[in-house]
Amino acid sequence: MSSSLLLHNQALHDILRGHLTEVAQDEALTPEVAMEAIEAGSMVLLGNPAHTGVRPLLVGQPARVKVNANLGTSPLSNCMQTELHKLATALAAGADTVMDLSIAGDLDAIRTAMLAACPRPLGTVPIYAVGQRLLDADRPISEMLPDDLFAEIAKQAAQGVDFITVHCGLSRRGAELATGRTLGIVSRGGSMLARWMRETGRENPLLEDFDRLLDICRPHNLTLSLGDGLRPGAGSDAGDAAQWEEVVNLGQLAAHARSRGVQCMIEGPGHLPLQQVRAQIMGIKQLVGQAPLYVLGPLCCDSAPGHDHLAGAIGAALAVEAGADFLCYLTPAEHLTLPDAADVHAGVMASRLAAHVGEIALKRPWALAREAAMNKARMALDWEGMAAAALDPARLHARREPHKGEEVCAMCGKFCAVKMLR
Amino acid sequence: MSSSLLLHNQALHDILRGHLTEVAQDEALTPEVAMEAIEAGSMVLLGNPAHTGVRPLLVGQPARVKVNANLGTSPLSNCMQTELHKLATALAAGADTVMDLSIAGDLDAIRTAMLAACPRPLGTVPIYAVGQRLLDADRPISEMLPDDLFAEIAKQAAQGVDFITVHCGLSRRGAELATGRTLGIVSRGGSMLARWMRETGRENPLLEDFDRLLDICRPHNLTLSLGDGLRPGAGSDAGDAAQWEEVVNLGQLAAHARSRGVQCMIEGPGHLPLQQVRAQIMGIKQLVGQAPLYVLGPLCCDSAPGHDHLAGAIGAALAVEAGADFLCYLTPAEHLTLPDAADVHAGVMASRLAAHVGEIALKRPWALAREAAMNKARMALDWEGMAAAALDPARLHARREPHKGEEVCAMCGKFCAVKMLR
Repeated sequence: MSSSLLLHNQALHDILRGHLTEVAQDEALTPEVAMEAIEAGSMVLLGNPAHTGVRPLLVGQPARVKVNANLGTSPLSNCMQTELHKLATALAAGADTVMDLSIAGDLDAIRTAMLAACPRPLGTVPIYAVGQRLLDADRPISEMLPDDLFAEIAKQAAQGVDFITVHCGLSRRGAELATGRTLGIVSRGGSMLARWMRETGRENPLLEDFDRLLDICRPHNLTLSLGDGLRPGAGSDAGDAAQWEEVVNLGQLAAHARSRGVQCMIEGPGHLPLQQVRAQIMGIKQLVGQAPLYVLGPLCCDSAPGHDHLAGAIGAALAVEAGADFLCYLTPAEHLTLPDAADVHAGVMASRLAAHVGEIALKRPWALAREAAMNKARMALDWEGMAAAALDPARLHARREPHKGEEVCAMCGKFCAVKMLR
Repeated sequence: MSSSLLLHNQALHDILRGHLTEVAQDEALTPEVAMEAIEAGSMVLLGNPAHTGVRPLLVGQPARVKVNANLGTSPLSNCMQTELHKLATALAAGADTVMDLSIAGDLDAIRTAMLAACPRPLGTVPIYAVGQRLLDADRPISEMLPDDLFAEIAKQAAQGVDFITVHCGLSRRGAELATGRTLGIVSRGGSMLARWMRETGRENPLLEDFDRLLDICRPHNLTLSLGDGLRPGAGSDAGDAAQWEEVVNLGQLAAHARSRGVQCMIEGPGHLPLQQVRAQIMGIKQLVGQAPLYVLGPLCCDSAPGHDHLAGAIGAALAVEAGADFLCYLTPAEHLTLPDAADVHAGVMASRLAAHVGEIALKRPWALAREAAMNKARMALDWEGMAAAALDPARLHARREPHKGEEVCAMCGKFCAVKMLR
């Protein structure tokens, strides 16, 4: 299987020829280690040659854990300038990738503007554009034509999109298994496909016609992010038959995609109680042949709307320790409204913090080096050194501002424990 | 041992006679179960009869996990009105207790005002008042007289303070063991005592004269929170000999205190890498005979100043799952400045969320009931029901405000997955 990927994927071959040394260096890896992981499918190289100016990015073991920020319009909050500002905020906060999840306005214009403004890989969920055309025309989702969905994916591939969420593993059987759930199906794309299947009586076209999808993606090195349309939307739904039925499918699809020269990541939960995180992450990674795992949270409680970036950071830290590779942020706006720029900043920081916590636990050298630099500066009361080591230097400076002339912090003043023992 | 506590502590006996049924009800426990846990020392009943209007509170297994908010002035931010406003904020956000850690201004006036305004148990660190008098007079901490420290504790006991942090387990040997650390001693009270011991060559008076302390506390049911002066201040210091030397002492002191009719909690870390949290919590609880464990965080990374409430929530959730009983909040201001009211709110919410996540993992019925109520409301798109179940209903309402007339949220609009499948 390992050589098939490069044998069939000329675009990936070309990117690697030009960028392998540089992208491996970004991860403190040798080109050989990176190459081996890409071939095995435990790492993917995101980057569509049609995305002008994109810096390709490695995702998966043993690269650094990455963070994605979801952006995009909604029917109730629809302004391209706002989304571009949020994009700049996400990049400044340290997001490794962004996804444009717009569902309102001129989606092609928004997407191409975002691609032009984003030097990091950009992902989408193509079914949204198809759904938008139907919903805006007050037509039911059951009228979606598989041809339209594939055509939309082909268009976005040509526009330069680097990775797409496609809910290929959501079968009729899986949707059926989800009917008794506390919260049913909470994935937007998943719920569209489930409704389409229920009303048409047909199987998911992304599953049934998977090879057609692969043929569209391959020439653009468009990486598949195999979506978890049946991820639990409530802790009490976690680990049910519907969820695992889909994971089984995703594992089979990922192996097939790699053998046909298309890179894959796997999307994971979702709402998961704390005590299930480790078992789920390890179980999913095994079933999908160690493909890079891209998790949304996991949120370890359902009752914290307004603070879901925090509920997600708890699960994300544990998920990273257990082998998750890529964190999709949650913001304080989750479950309530579209995130604003402050939410985007908070969400990226919460995910970066969770990644850092998990990587410390894994004793990754870059994580331990950051901690050592922070502690050396802290012991010396060297505030510039602390800022240099901090995940969020701007926040440190802003909070210090009123007392920046002081050697000590404004919490302890002359009671500073560090100073007391000098 | 079990009967000694009540045999010797007449104040506790009196409170229990008047309030046992009510405080047990607050925890969904029978009076018998509560009584047994108090006698065994696995639970404490906070409440000083001199604290007018206080509602006594059970802390420890199998009661609900509690959250404390630290308040109080600092030399660089010293205003009683501000602290009283922060107290109101902490109570409104759901803090179960507060600590007045003031180190600037008229400490007696601040403390008595806080006690009068606080119907929940209030704690202090009495050595701060002694230290303040010396530092304000530009005198070294080595001039502290043990008599002054005991007199301060006696005064605060009479004022109505419900629990005090006393670093009784910090021995000369422990302080010596901490000298090679990355960050030495980061507890303010611990660093004062360590400096005093180093400069006077004497043993810690709170350790050496522990029975004197017990005699002061007993008549007021003043509960000891045996402080961890040697808690790690950096992840790389976690689990070292200095830390465990102190825990060994704390376990012995706790057993002795109970046998003399004084209730004890144990304070725990601090900065702990993720993979150490469970082992540390279980190890400490074993060494202290299952006394209630009151943790500060634990913070699972050192490099997130400005976001330490989040670093702490990750560790706190895991700590609760492993048996921690009482969470001291961290706010976004930690390591940088004195928290303002917004920080207090964020800190209490982060700790409550962490407690909730941990209690879900432990399958505590109140935690599962909250989740079930949230999910039922979410499935019905019943926003008032969601607010009623939410940890922070005010935040939910504030974020919904611009779109409160809509049935769906402003993130998904008509793409609502829940609605799609109705």
